Order: sequence, then structure tokens, then C-alpha cells
Amino acid sequence: MPLSRHDLSEPIRRQLIDLAGALADAARAPTLQYFRTSALSIDDKADPQGRFDPVTAADRAAESAIRDHLAATRPEDGILGEEFAPTSGTSGLTWIIDPIDGTRGYMSGTPTWGVLVALADAEGPFLGVIDQPYIGERFIGGLGQAQVSGPMGTAPLRCRPARALADAVLFSTFPEVGTPAEGAAFARVAAQARLTRYGTDCYAYALLAAGQIDLVIEAGLKPYDVAAPMAVIHAAGGIVTDWQGGDAAPGGQVLAASSPELHAEAMALLNA
Amino acid sequence: MPLSRHDLSEPIRRQLIDLAGALADAARAPTLQYFRTSALSIDDKADPQGRFDPVTAADRAAESAIRDHLAATRPEDGILGEEFAPTSGTSGLTWIIDPIDGTRGYMSGTPTWGVLVALADAEGPFLGVIDQPYIGERFIGGLGQAQVSGPMGTAPLRCRPARALADAVLFSTFPEVGTPAEGAAFARVAAQARLTRYGTDCYAYALLAAGQIDLVIEAGLKPYDVAAPMAVIHAAGGIVTDWQGGDAAPGGQVLAASSPELHAEAMALLNA
Repeated sequence: MPLSRHDLSEPIRRQLIDLAGALADAARAPTLQYFRTSALSIDDKADPQGRFDPVTAADRAAESAIRDHLAATRPEDGILGEEFAPTSGTSGLTWIIDPIDGTRGYMSGTPTWGVLVALADAEGPFLGVIDQPYIGERFIGGLGQAQVSGPMGTAPLRCRPARALADAVLFSTFPEVGTPAEGAAFARVAAQARLTRYGTDCYAYALLAAGQIDLVIEAGLKPYDVAAPMAVIHAAGGIVTDWQGGDAAPGGQVLAASSPELHAEAMALLNA
Repeated sequence: MPLSRHDLSEPIRRQLIDLAGALADAARAPTLQYFRTSALSIDDKADPQGRFDPVTAADRAAESAIRDHLAATRPEDGILGEEFAPTSGTSGLTWIIDPIDGTRGYMSGTPTWGVLVALADAEGPFLGVIDQPYIGERFIGGLGQAQVSGPMGTAPLRCRPARALADAVLFSTFPEVGTPAEGAAFARVAAQARLTRYGTDCYAYALLAAGQIDLVIEAGLKPYDVAAPMAVIHAAGGIVTDWQGGDAAPGGQVLAASSPELHAEAMALLNA
């Protein structure tokens, strides 16, 4: 009988929360070892959209460190990571890992890339960590947790109250969102938002969970890009779906909102 | 006889470098007091381009703290700041201050806004600090200094070696750079760059000085937006001009590059 989030005893919940943090810790040294150096070893991965998508030595070293930690602590769980082939588990639980989300930002020295760690059952991600090792900042959500810890201490994560799109702050990683049709849909929302900003990768989802912004809209995401953000935003009271209101966990188009009202307003424009 | 950078004794140079850091320190508490809170007091300033340009209570409190510190330490110097009327000095030196460069990023919770402090003589800025209080990161350049201190310790600032535009990383704050004509000129450069990223405000200039990126192109800047970046990038061996190769200190169009070759390649496209 595979485990689900509903079967977990309190000690196991605590163990999984601590382990999620420990996995992010394991990525810290390998990611910072290469950050802001000129020693990055960069491959260009094949990218169906032809965009520049480097993989760094840091990315691979960090995922290896996380996998080694999992092999030693919960070998019964599956692993889906960006850099290596998926590992089947027997427990019903799967760790979903993006060792460096935002490799282009990482390579440019910006501090808004992140280490993403999520735990999923058959229903999807239910525990997530968005970790920024350079700043020393961690956003964690799920299994009763929703908090950020960083330079200003620890604070609860809570999406901010509903506001109209005309008052909302929208984030996306690139102005050219996905395909031309997806970009046009995004532009319809951006045209109505109070402010649209770019360049943040996973950090935008963390800001949404922290009540700082209202919407994140992206396309072309992979499952490991969205799993941890989904769990963190759900824990903070927000909503993450695809652009049709369906499950965002498979990746592709993602619409994250601080409130159901704003989510509906943005989704209507995306599909107008 | 007004002072210039060429007249300064070693003790005075040391005093000015320390004072520049102390002024950034003075802005730390007022800026962090309101960062990531829901208590921001926002006015919309008149903006000739009609863009959203909030001024926060933090912005004003931080500039006041810097001005108070200067009044107590070097009342003979002039002050040009974003938030209050200019103050004339008698020394020939002027402090140029942007207490929060990147207020839109600040309001959104991103960690790439900065406190900008520069010191200028009649020739222009010759000492600059780009400070990021949330990360605890400071980039300082001028009077023989060029270094960054932050979460990974202290390191020299040095622009990276020349590379062709086809291999270069370009940053700007918004994809819609300046007027439509300016935006079209920017797009000509972006189309040839290896990677273009947005959303960083002053942090992009710091990354250029730190050897992480190659180009920053912006338009519509104010003198207090560009003074500290100019000094820091000059100290790191880079080049900052307007889009015609002239003095960038008055603001407006800014082209910052890691090498003369790349600067020339970008400028040719801007003026094509």
C-alpha cells in the first residue's frame, strides 16, 4: 500500500520536514562553490524552444549531493531530478528536485536562483522548500509548516489578501513567455496589471508565498520547476494551476495567484 | 579653490572611503525597517514616461539618515539626492545619493534594489558604493578601492575580459527600455547578445563590476541612478558612457561595458 500525505504519523511528518531542509543544506556547498566564480563548466542542453539553457557543474554536484543524502536516509522513496534519470521508489513518496532553478540567473551572478526540493504522493507535491543559499534564505511550506527564514529572522508565509488585477504585481522570468500564442496571452494579463517584473525564476513563487507579489505566470516549465513552488504557495494560502485551472504539477503553463478572485481574473485573460 | 579627486591626501582619501561606507550603513535600518512588510507608504511621483514610480517612506527615511550623517561629518560638501532638494557645498565635492535605487523591486520584495552613494568633483563621480542591505552585500569602487564584501567574504571587483557580443550577457531593468526608438535600439543589441536578463536595477552594474555579466544598457536614468555605478565600474576596469560615447553622469541613456571592444560593438548597434 503506497504512502500518502494522509498516512503520515507526526514523527514521520517531522522527519520529512527536517529531511527536506537537510536536502537543501546538502546543495548549499556544491552550489556556492561555483557561484560568482569564473570556473563554471557549462553545457548547452538541447532545448525544444531553442533558448539558452546551460547546465553547470554546480547543478550536477548539487543533485548528486541530494541523491546521496536520500540514499542514506530514505532509500525507499523515488527521486525525480533535473540532472539524472528518475529513481523508482517503493514507499509511494517521490522527492522532486531542481538543484539549481534559474541556471541562467546563477551564471549571471544574480541572487534569485534557488534550490528546489519537494515531496509528492500520488496526489502531487505536498511539501516544498525554495532555498537561496547565497542570501541564506529558505521558504518552506507543507505538512503544517509555512515559513521563511533568512537575514531578517523567521516569519510566517502568507499570501496577501485579494486585490484586483489593476492593483496587482505580476512576475515572470522572461518577457517572451513560451510560444508566441502563450506570449500574447501573458501580455493580455501584463497589460492590466499594475506592475510586471522579470528575471526571478523560482524566487517569484517565494515572493508570492511571502505576500509580496500577487501573480506569477510562466510557460514551458518542467515538473521539477513547479513542484516545490506549488507546495510552498499552497501552504501560504495561494493557488497554483495550469492556465486552464487544471493540475500544474506536470509543468508546462503555470498560473500562481494570491487569491481565487485574482486567479480567475488572470485566467480569463489568458484564455480570452 | 574647489577640491578635486587629485587634491586629496591619503588620510582624506581614507576618510572619504570610510564615510561612503558609513553613509550606506546609515541607510540600512531605515530601508530594512519597511522591506517585506505590508506597511509601505507609497506615493506615485509624477513620471514623464507614465511609468509606475513609487516613493516609499523608507526612501525618504534613508535619505534623511544619510543627510544627517553628512551634516554632522562633512557639512562643507554638497548633496544631490533623489528625495530632497539639492544642498550646495563649499568644498567642491558633492555626494550623490539614491537611498533606494529600484523602489519597484523593493516594493515587490526582490533583493536586487540598492542604496547608492557616490562622491563627485567637477569631473564627475570618482567614488561609489552599491549596497544591498538585505543580503548584506557592498560593492565599493574608487580612490584605489575596488571590492565586494558579502555572504562569501571579500573579493576584488574586476570586470571580466573582453568577449564578443555574441558571447555576452546583457542586463536591463525593463524590456521596454525608454522611448519606442530607444527600445528599438536596445532590441538590436539584445538580439545579438547571448543572453538578456531583466529586473535588477542597480544590481546589474554591481554584477558587471564583479565580472559576472558584460553589458548594462538603460535609458531614462537620473544622475543619482548612475553616479555610484559609474565610479564602481570605472574602479573595476569597465566603461560607462551614454549611448553616443559621451559622459554618462547627467543620466539619460547609459551604456556600461566590461571592455572597450564590447562597448564599441554595442554602441554601433545602438546607433545603427
